[in-house]
Order: sequence, then structure tokens, then C-alpha cells
Amino acid sequence: MKDLSIEDLDARFMAEAIKEARKAAQKGEVPVGCVIVCQGEVISRGHNLREGKNDPTAHAEIIAIRKAASRLKNWRLAGCTLYATIEPCPMCAGAIVLSRIDRVVYAVEDEKAGAVKSLYTLLEDKRLNHQVAEVVKGVREEEVRTLMRSFFKILRKKQV
Amino acid sequence: MKDLSIEDLDARFMAEAIKEARKAAQKGEVPVGCVIVCQGEVISRGHNLREGKNDPTAHAEIIAIRKAASRLKNWRLAGCTLYATIEPCPMCAGAIVLSRIDRVVYAVEDEKAGAVKSLYTLLEDKRLNHQVAEVVKGVREEEVRTLMRSFFKILRKKQV
Repeated sequence: MKDLSIEDLDARFMAEAIKEARKAAQKGEVPVGCVIVCQGEVISRGHNLREGKNDPTAHAEIIAIRKAASRLKNWRLAGCTLYATIEPCPMCAGAIVLSRIDRVVYAVEDEKAGAVKSLYTLLEDKRLNHQVAEVVKGVREEEVRTLMRSFFKILRKKQV
Repeated sequence: MKDLSIEDLDARFMAEAIKEARKAAQKGEVPVGCVIVCQGEVISRGHNLREGKNDPTAHAEIIAIRKAASRLKNWRLAGCTLYATIEPCPMCAGAIVLSRIDRVVYAVEDEKAGAVKSLYTLLEDKRLNHQVAEVVKGVREEEVRTLMRSFFKILRKKQV
């Protein structure tokens, strides 16, 4: 791990988040995946399970945050990096701030609901009691775009 | 129930949310409570459990939304009203929009983190794919203020 640049590490962990997104797609869920990394190790994983769990909060990020906090036995995830395939929505961005995650990496912007850059900039709001120190976007962007496109193409075929 | 006005009903259900907030206080958690009402019936309850559960997402509203969806076996909570003792934060307001709740009633504004009126107006954002039809604030406000004040007074004494 020592020889890898931060860009290499981000690409590597985003590949893990994409694996999670693929698991969601296999279950017929919108393919969104997330992993949380602490001290160079993936400490939790999550993929969207809204339909299967009948849970409007079962986004990949919320699942991964809850698992990470449970594993660390601490709701504060300071020092952790969250990797998400899509720009987090207001709920997930709010949860990221509450959990005091320090770094967020995502692949693709969500112009319709993104709360990191698109509709809101929640992670850097100085009125809230935590700000995410660094946000990186665009890691493995094309891979995630292809996955999303292919999922919705199949979905539309099924609906015809 | 038929003879009760909407104001009477709101006061009655907010009293249930306050009961939940008191449960949180008894556990040493910041006293926030929530109930969700569907067709005149409380279908779920939640109180803040962040410390006890080591879960940054364990806000009263998230717990109540997850329970309501589980009970209805549907992530869509259309037609439901959410009662919260405090103005929901960005995470909880985002979850309310995602769950398609139609009505939100809260007692006290949260100037530091509220995402309904104070810092953001997430519930009425037309760019998102659902808007909450009605928001009512100030129901049993003084009762909740007193509860909060008393909790933080005791907490400060303990910390001295």
C-alpha cells in the first residue's frame, strides 16, 4: 500500500464501491454502492436496498455509515473516507456531516438530487458543526456511468 | 376522534412525540422524539439513540421512518404525518422527502441545524422529486423548550 499514490488508492477503493453497486443491480435495485475506509482498510460496505428492505433510508451510504459506526463502536467516524458511486443526496450528505467523516470521494454527479455540489453544498456548510475537509469527484466516472446506463436500459426494456 | 379539530389532533400527537423525547432523556440522550401517524393512528415511534446505539443516523425521525415503512411494508409513506419535537436536520429532512411523507409538524425551531425553515427549506424544494404539502410549527413549543432546557441544565451540572 505504501507505494500507491492517493489517486491510485482512490481508484482502488472506488472499485470496491462499484462492486457494491453491482450487487444492488443484481437485486433489481438502482445500482449505488459505498465503502468506508479507515487507516487504509475497508471497514464497511453498503449498497442500495430501498426496494428489498422497504426502507426509504436504505441508501448505500447510510448502510455503510451505520455498519462502520457499529464496527468502531463509535458514532464519530473522524479520519474515515467515504467512497460513493453517486454524489450523495441530502439525507446521505447530512449523515456524512453528522458522522464527522473527513473525506468524501464520488464518481458521478447527481444533478437531480446531489447535495455535495449539485443542488446543495452541505458538506462544506460552516453553519453546521462539522465540515468535510476534502471532496474528490470523478473517480472511475465512466465505469459508473456505463453501469447506470445499462441498468436503466434493462429496466426500460422490462417495463415495455 | 371525529370531534377533534386538526389543532387538537396535532397537540395530541405531539404529546406522544414528547413522551418519546422523555425516553431519550432518561437514557442520557439529547431529548428528541418523533411519531408517525397514518389514518389517525400512531404507526411508529422513535427517540434519539445516537449514544446508546453508537449510530450517527439514530435520530428519532430516522428510527420512526424506518419502523413505519417496515410496518406498512412500503418505503412510500404517502398520506402520513410526521411529528417531531425539534425541527428536523438535513439528514432527517432528506429522509422525510425520500419517504414521501405529506405533512410535518414540529414544536421547536433548530436555528443551528434545522433544514425545514432555519438553515434550509428542504421539504419544499421543487427540484427534488417530492415536496411535503404542509408544515406546521410551534405545537407544544413551550413544553419542548422546558424539556430541552432542563436536560441541558442537568448535563452541565454533571460536567462540572
